[in-house]
Amino acid sequence: MKNFKPLNGLIAAVFTPFTEAGEINPSTVPSYAARLKQQGVAGVFVNGSSGEGMMLSVSERKEMAEAWMPFQDDNFRVIIHVGSTSVKISQELAAHGQSIGADAIACMAPSFFSSSDVNVIAGYCREVALSAPELPFYYYHLPVATGAHIKVNQLLELGSKSIPNLVGVKFTNTDFMDMHQCIALQDGRFDVLHGHDEILINGLILGVKGAIGTTFNFIPEIYQKIIDAYDSGDFETARMYQMKSIKIVMVMLKYVNAIVGGKAILKLSGIDCGPCRTPLRNLSEQEMAALRNDLVQEGYFEMLDEFRLLNV
Amino acid sequence: MKNFKPLNGLIAAVFTPFTEAGEINPSTVPSYAARLKQQGVAGVFVNGSSGEGMMLSVSERKEMAEAWMPFQDDNFRVIIHVGSTSVKISQELAAHGQSIGADAIACMAPSFFSSSDVNVIAGYCREVALSAPELPFYYYHLPVATGAHIKVNQLLELGSKSIPNLVGVKFTNTDFMDMHQCIALQDGRFDVLHGHDEILINGLILGVKGAIGTTFNFIPEIYQKIIDAYDSGDFETARMYQMKSIKIVMVMLKYVNAIVGGKAILKLSGIDCGPCRTPLRNLSEQEMAALRNDLVQEGYFEMLDEFRLLNV
Amino acid sequence: MKNFKPLNGLIAAVFTPFTEAGEINPSTVPSYAARLKQQGVAGVFVNGSSGEGMMLSVSERKEMAEAWMPFQDDNFRVIIHVGSTSVKISQELAAHGQSIGADAIACMAPSFFSSSDVNVIAGYCREVALSAPELPFYYYHLPVATGAHIKVNQLLELGSKSIPNLVGVKFTNTDFMDMHQCIALQDGRFDVLHGHDEILINGLILGVKGAIGTTFNFIPEIYQKIIDAYDSGDFETARMYQMKSIKIVMVMLKYVNAIVGGKAILKLSGIDCGPCRTPLRNLSEQEMAALRNDLVQEGYFEMLDEFRLLNV
Amino acid sequence: MKNFKPLNGLIAAVFTPFTEAGEINPSTVPSYAARLKQQGVAGVFVNGSSGEGMMLSVSERKEMAEAWMPFQDDNFRVIIHVGSTSVKISQELAAHGQSIGADAIACMAPSFFSSSDVNVIAGYCREVALSAPELPFYYYHLPVATGAHIKVNQLLELGSKSIPNLVGVKFTNTDFMDMHQCIALQDGRFDVLHGHDEILINGLILGVKGAIGTTFNFIPEIYQKIIDAYDSGDFETARMYQMKSIKIVMVMLKYVNAIVGGKAILKLSGIDCGPCRTPLRNLSEQEMAALRNDLVQEGYFEMLDEFRLLNV
Repeated sequence: MKNFKPLNGLIAAVFTPFTEAGEINPSTVPSYAARLKQQGVAGVFVNGSSGEGMMLSVSERKEMAEAWMPFQDDNFRVIIHVGSTSVKISQELAAHGQSIGADAIACMAPSFFSSSDVNVIAGYCREVALSAPELPFYYYHLPVATGAHIKVNQLLELGSKSIPNLVGVKFTNTDFMDMHQCIALQDGRFDVLHGHDEILINGLILGVKGAIGTTFNFIPEIYQKIIDAYDSGDFETARMYQMKSIKIVMVMLKYVNAIVGGKAILKLSGIDCGPCRTPLRNLSEQEMAALRNDLVQEGYFEMLDEFRLLNV
Repeated sequence: MKNFKPLNGLIAAVFTPFTEAGEINPSTVPSYAARLKQQGVAGVFVNGSSGEGMMLSVSERKEMAEAWMPFQDDNFRVIIHVGSTSVKISQELAAHGQSIGADAIACMAPSFFSSSDVNVIAGYCREVALSAPELPFYYYHLPVATGAHIKVNQLLELGSKSIPNLVGVKFTNTDFMDMHQCIALQDGRFDVLHGHDEILINGLILGVKGAIGTTFNFIPEIYQKIIDAYDSGDFETARMYQMKSIKIVMVMLKYVNAIVGGKAILKLSGIDCGPCRTPLRNLSEQEMAALRNDLVQEGYFEMLDEFRLLNV
Repeated sequence: MKNFKPLNGLIAAVFTPFTEAGEINPSTVPSYAARLKQQGVAGVFVNGSSGEGMMLSVSERKEMAEAWMPFQDDNFRVIIHVGSTSVKISQELAAHGQSIGADAIACMAPSFFSSSDVNVIAGYCREVALSAPELPFYYYHLPVATGAHIKVNQLLELGSKSIPNLVGVKFTNTDFMDMHQCIALQDGRFDVLHGHDEILINGLILGVKGAIGTTFNFIPEIYQKIIDAYDSGDFETARMYQMKSIKIVMVMLKYVNAIVGGKAILKLSGIDCGPCRTPLRNLSEQEMAALRNDLVQEGYFEMLDEFRLLNV
Repeated sequence: MKNFKPLNGLIAAVFTPFTEAGEINPSTVPSYAARLKQQGVAGVFVNGSSGEGMMLSVSERKEMAEAWMPFQDDNFRVIIHVGSTSVKISQELAAHGQSIGADAIACMAPSFFSSSDVNVIAGYCREVALSAPELPFYYYHLPVATGAHIKVNQLLELGSKSIPNLVGVKFTNTDFMDMHQCIALQDGRFDVLHGHDEILINGLILGVKGAIGTTFNFIPEIYQKIIDAYDSGDFETARMYQMKSIKIVMVMLKYVNAIVGGKAILKLSGIDCGPCRTPLRNLSEQEMAALRNDLVQEGYFEMLDEFRLLNV
């Protein structure tokens, strides 16, 4: 494995742009990447659950991964998610990620014949990780979607012996005992990335330094405010910004789920990634109008404008 | 759609043969098919959950589908399962199934972003079914694995208006109210295939005529006995054979699950399909010996010999 | 234990009558019992889930049990459900059931600190059953409400050694493999009572002779038709009546759940058991009107009239 | 309602002492209370889930509540849990709690016919709370046991209009977004008590001031260290003590669950509360020895001795 640098800061779990006809649309990536950089985002997590990675064909996933690579730099890192129901497909995607020079790969547990046996998941991860031996490998913990209800600290413990390039986890779960154990394990050897935007602060207190999130696609500045306030010991301000984040997350989730609602918010924020792919559904015009109204109520667009001025 | 003929009789949900190195091994298919025909099986369900279809790459799935086609005839029908987490992949597999002349395709609900909204599932099925418009399309109902907890009768009702080639369902669930409603719907228009071997008799009483099962891979004769006894009104004999089936199913499930245990029983019955693919695991030699012993206890091999004589 | 006679026929899982003020109202029992006898019901299951038994105080449960005893006879048997979250309370109710001369007691698994360990449940049942040693004891299997996801056949196997008065199970679950195993166990020693009205026929084929159900409160005659048709080998008629039952069950479940909807249908059928107790809720007048309309659509009242003439 | 004072500090969710014969044993309470006071505990939560409240008869619950009252003072507050499956029973216990002068009552959602409809739960709470109108009322949020998967902030919002004595929640869940919303609601009007010892620190960062926990029964000092370190801005020390807490919680949970394991640890710490009641089971001597050994490994007894010296 090449030299490993932890993923500090805010990584956007980017959406996959589609044309109206439902085909992937990599031509949106340049403006999307430019916007994210302008907003201070530290990198992208490509083809994850927000990116509808599991809904893409293998060639589409490769194409999307490639589309983000030109924007990679020291301050904008590119992590490719390679999880699937087939270890063969994940291996192919992992090798591809290495071949194009991604910063790291990540893999969730298989969602078919899902297993909560940590030995099984460790074995699975090993087979994938070894297909990209030069890249850091992150386990993507998303039990609500995969059904793999394991304790990640046990996986890291096992993996520390069997998976040379295992470096950490994207932790999208509310089991903070497990998160704490992951962070404390082997003197802090592993990079634990927070995957729940609305409770970022609850991870900061454990020492978390990096996060991967869906709302970082459109309003990462709120989270930078949380981190800054936390770092300066001003918890009241940190909580206040976290509550702003919660209100936006509540609006997002009201519109089907984080992908459908999130993609729609991003569109209203100026980057149009088109529709979602089945089994996700798209919002009607009426729903879009209601969403916009809800965002206005929460002061979203005002915040966006305010932050935009600061970002210039 | 071509002329549709319901799938009466016993369809084996075939396993995918692997080499010891873990690659697919289509060279096992000829002897496997010959054995199934000798045992009176009416067809095969390829690349389903028993076939580890979701663990295969797209090209492997096509290769396995092609491997079974030479054995297709009027009394040995070939159904290809095309479900995946990506509608694009399922469409490609459906079109491939049509191009090679399969008898029908089947598709389960996507297991990632699983939905229990019947409109969503119907929309998803439509997109897949229309990619193989000349083939009959079966919905594969397997909620325990997919998380799509819908009422199939509602899906069939919706699909009867929107999916021209929807002809029925592989029903692998214990909700017999729903199964009854499926059978009664629109004067029995839909072909309802029973997907739970151990409770076949509980479907026969509703009028079921066909079944797709894992244990039909190695001891279909028991089920033919159940059907024959049921048809002749001898319920005591039917129940007695169903209890024999239950005892073998209990042994099978004791060894990890139906795929791992089932593949091992088939191996002990003379057809070696090799190991399973991760996240499934394989049995140790000790476990294989214990499995064999359990089968002996249940009189499995004696039954097999007895049936073999009858099959000659 | 006194001489045990299996519970053949249809046992109504009776509702608990309440006054409008929400107090139990035993004065409704005489007319309720008379109606059930007229309709050919073979007994009552008192204080079960349909009877809101878990919502009653201990003294209310005793009072309701006592209210049904005067109507007990050889053709109208009284089973008292004594399940609770406290073994102490269940023991007290079991002893009370014995003291008033009930035909049998039944007990579900505790719903708090629910366990799916069959040894734990067997131990729990033993402690309750031994408090009414002269009465037959039935395990009430209702995993969807209790969270005790055990295999009943294993419980019966264990209990056959440790619970002298264990005689059977009220089986309210769709695991027909388990039901079949219960029936076959120890040469049919145990009395297996079907607890799902809408799939009665799927149990008849396994040899079930008795059933306990909610819809037997208002339209038991449909089920007698199913049984009669089944016994005479006329499966088409049996299925046709089962579908009528399914349609009424669908209407019932549409109005909150089986208790709320069922109690409302009974009221529309002439026996007013008053409101339900929190956390159940009651139907608005508008909902009652819609329910009546749905029943008219399904021909419910016509059937009721037709059966009433036959019952005279 | 009398003047309300929030429950700051550490409240022990006390166990119910039983004799070896399985009867409640209030005679253990005086020494138990003395020990807790010596350890700096701010009060007790009686008859909760740790107290096996749902396994007790109504009279036993009253007796245990009464047993703790003599030890009540300004620095040692007594909260009585009154939840049950029957609103009648809960009302009786609430009125009893008020009659004996408890500081507050708490009530969990009913675990039978569990509902995740916040309106239903609010209505249920109202009926209970109004039976003790002079006492502060806390909702006890324990969805893993009750099945009431509601958002507590919505309950508090509803209850603020309909339940005059609703003052807060014992929040035993990992949904920190909901906890944050509860705390922020109506300018911090509600008292939010943390119910998960092992992740106390993740609540402190949200502003939590009080907690109710099982491990406060035997080693509350660790948590006081966490709070003190947090308050002084020494997060590293706070995390270090939280990790010590996690290790003890891991040991506790290894022995059946928090009640069985916790009661056993308390016994090894000098207060013998006897066995647990079915469906809980008790540890064998071998298991007790293994538990002691695990505690030694984690330095438990050394910590206990160290703290004891400080407490003198």
